[in-house]
Amino acid sequence: MAFSERVSRLKSSLIREILAAAQRPEVMSFAGGLPAEAMLPEVEWADMPLSMGQYGMSEGEPALREALAAEARGLGVPCEASQVLVVSGSQQTLDLAAKLYIDKGTEILLEAPTYLAALQIFQLFGADCITVPLEADGPDLEQLRARLEKHRPAFIYLIPTFQNPSAVRYSEAKRDAVAALLDEFGVTLIEDEPYRELTFDGGSAMPIVSRLKKSSWIYTGTVSKTLLPGLRVGYLIASPDLFPHLLKLKQSADLHTNRVGQWQALQWIGTEKFDHHLRELRDFYRVRRDAFQCSLETHFADLADWNVPQGGLFFWLTLKQPMDTRTLLKPALAADVAFMPGEPFFPDPDNNPGHLRLNFSHIDPARLDEGLSLLAAVIRQAHAAKAA
Amino acid sequence: MAFSERVSRLKSSLIREILAAAQRPEVMSFAGGLPAEAMLPEVEWADMPLSMGQYGMSEGEPALREALAAEARGLGVPCEASQVLVVSGSQQTLDLAAKLYIDKGTEILLEAPTYLAALQIFQLFGADCITVPLEADGPDLEQLRARLEKHRPAFIYLIPTFQNPSAVRYSEAKRDAVAALLDEFGVTLIEDEPYRELTFDGGSAMPIVSRLKKSSWIYTGTVSKTLLPGLRVGYLIASPDLFPHLLKLKQSADLHTNRVGQWQALQWIGTEKFDHHLRELRDFYRVRRDAFQCSLETHFADLADWNVPQGGLFFWLTLKQPMDTRTLLKPALAADVAFMPGEPFFPDPDNNPGHLRLNFSHIDPARLDEGLSLLAAVIRQAHAAKAA
Repeated sequence: MAFSERVSRLKSSLIREILAAAQRPEVMSFAGGLPAEAMLPEVEWADMPLSMGQYGMSEGEPALREALAAEARGLGVPCEASQVLVVSGSQQTLDLAAKLYIDKGTEILLEAPTYLAALQIFQLFGADCITVPLEADGPDLEQLRARLEKHRPAFIYLIPTFQNPSAVRYSEAKRDAVAALLDEFGVTLIEDEPYRELTFDGGSAMPIVSRLKKSSWIYTGTVSKTLLPGLRVGYLIASPDLFPHLLKLKQSADLHTNRVGQWQALQWIGTEKFDHHLRELRDFYRVRRDAFQCSLETHFADLADWNVPQGGLFFWLTLKQPMDTRTLLKPALAADVAFMPGEPFFPDPDNNPGHLRLNFSHIDPARLDEGLSLLAAVIRQAHAAKAA
Repeated sequence: MAFSERVSRLKSSLIREILAAAQRPEVMSFAGGLPAEAMLPEVEWADMPLSMGQYGMSEGEPALREALAAEARGLGVPCEASQVLVVSGSQQTLDLAAKLYIDKGTEILLEAPTYLAALQIFQLFGADCITVPLEADGPDLEQLRARLEKHRPAFIYLIPTFQNPSAVRYSEAKRDAVAALLDEFGVTLIEDEPYRELTFDGGSAMPIVSRLKKSSWIYTGTVSKTLLPGLRVGYLIASPDLFPHLLKLKQSADLHTNRVGQWQALQWIGTEKFDHHLRELRDFYRVRRDAFQCSLETHFADLADWNVPQGGLFFWLTLKQPMDTRTLLKPALAADVAFMPGEPFFPDPDNNPGHLRLNFSHIDPARLDEGLSLLAAVIRQAHAAKAA
């Protein structure tokens, strides 16, 4: 059996395995990143024209590209519809970017921690992952400059608004500083913003790509967190030098994104109906966030430190007594509670013990307190066993 | 700008450019491979559960996997639902296979001619494309054996039923012989069957994967030619040794295939309603095929040779006086007629002049005769210019 060299780096996804283990209905899961079922909007299909069943353009539906470009311009992203590529969920942006940039040993720059599935695809293609640590308001700028002086990364991948997993939102000052550094060193930016609209305490700052003066860029988003993830409709917007390559890569990957989902997305994007839905979604998640914070204070105050997330779907806990949280999974699942260990969100997991990612959007509020209490007990027991 | 090494092999697709040039309504196009609009079935969405909007499994919807496995077993493919992976159109199978097998310089074995978009993705990943010539009933077996004795291809990619572009359907004897050769040399088979159901003159022979005794295999199909291409729902079925790798590659490519399209496909696969639709589709295309053959006899009898396709969507013409048919494109488009040159269907286009691929499913029958007459005139003019 002769597979490609890259298959030796094809990792099983820990999150997949946890989600599989957490299928039992009695398990309280803080592991995934699913939207709450109750907030999936009712959608209508009756008016969809039959022509949406025919093959479509690799670029995506023209009207949807126009709508997405208009939304992005509203955020300050300088773009035309011709720079918009509709993709099969924003995960596909990462696949296309990996193909565009990464050979074995190609250096890329990432936040530490960063999005698990981005690591998975970038490492599959053989990237050498350089990292810059995140602080509460964005990357450590001194370390970012030091990395840029020492390395020539093919791109930097950032999730500046309510990052998965850390929930960090970059400050205005750090957004400006990051843009200036990337321009100075001529580094391409891939900016991933699935959570921008899920903001609980006020509006989100302009994307970093809108602050660039020279560097190439890819901005990517999705309707998965705001409308329906099952549609698998995301998009990327790219600087004009990159767009033609990304389009050809899209075509060779799957010809085009499904038109049924594109049509449904178009019924919402930019409408008053969508604004209304987003307001309801923010209110709903804010209440869940607040309840989670309350319950965390009760059960985790002596065990961990964390910042209250201003948006997104996750709390990111740092244990006061660091330990490899992957070892907690088995006892947690035995106690019918699931969570996501923090180590896999780093390219060097073994050097980054002691974090937990907890999703607050999907758990039944009636079981929240029970779930966090059980999880805290599992951690206490592990600490006690270690001390003994 | 430092792109990956593979981007140097990222080709623009000639077919895309032709389709763009053929957008003008006055152009009669034989270039694409679109299903006839008139035969897109009316579909109902009213009963789709809202839960289809949530994230789904990377493997695909369980009920759809069961239905696809049952269909495949009906064709003689030995498989369980656990071997079925729903993909975003069967083009994605080729992307996943390229990732699984192809490093720069990896030898793979293809039919000559072969499917354009397969060449595009395999060459993007750096494959060294070895070919075996097609005869009217399948590959030249002596040459196939010679290739297998000389090379160790990572896989062989075959489209044995109404191939795009050549319309070749492998005979029973050649299917058996190919399976025996692949078992003898231990070569993995990727069998692509988008056109199996579009058969005009009787049933299709059992897939080659069902005749293998030892080799690993991937069988891939789609609902794009039988139901609605805009759904972007295809599938692969793989031998158990390959499946786990393909599943992880699927997950890292786009998490999962859109569930809306999967749900719609499930409403049809294996139903009496679908059988009825397929019968209508075959009747409709048979009539178009027959009319096309009739018109070809009138206008091309002295210009080209061809076999009457027993299925699929294309006639494959071989000019009696070979010439680079890519040079015919400009004058053809000037005469408001589009076709697909044969050269790009070969890894070595310049050594394979003189073929045209003509689609018969999509042209308006009222303009068929006019279109073929114009195309024949363009060819005659080119011959005359050459002779002058």
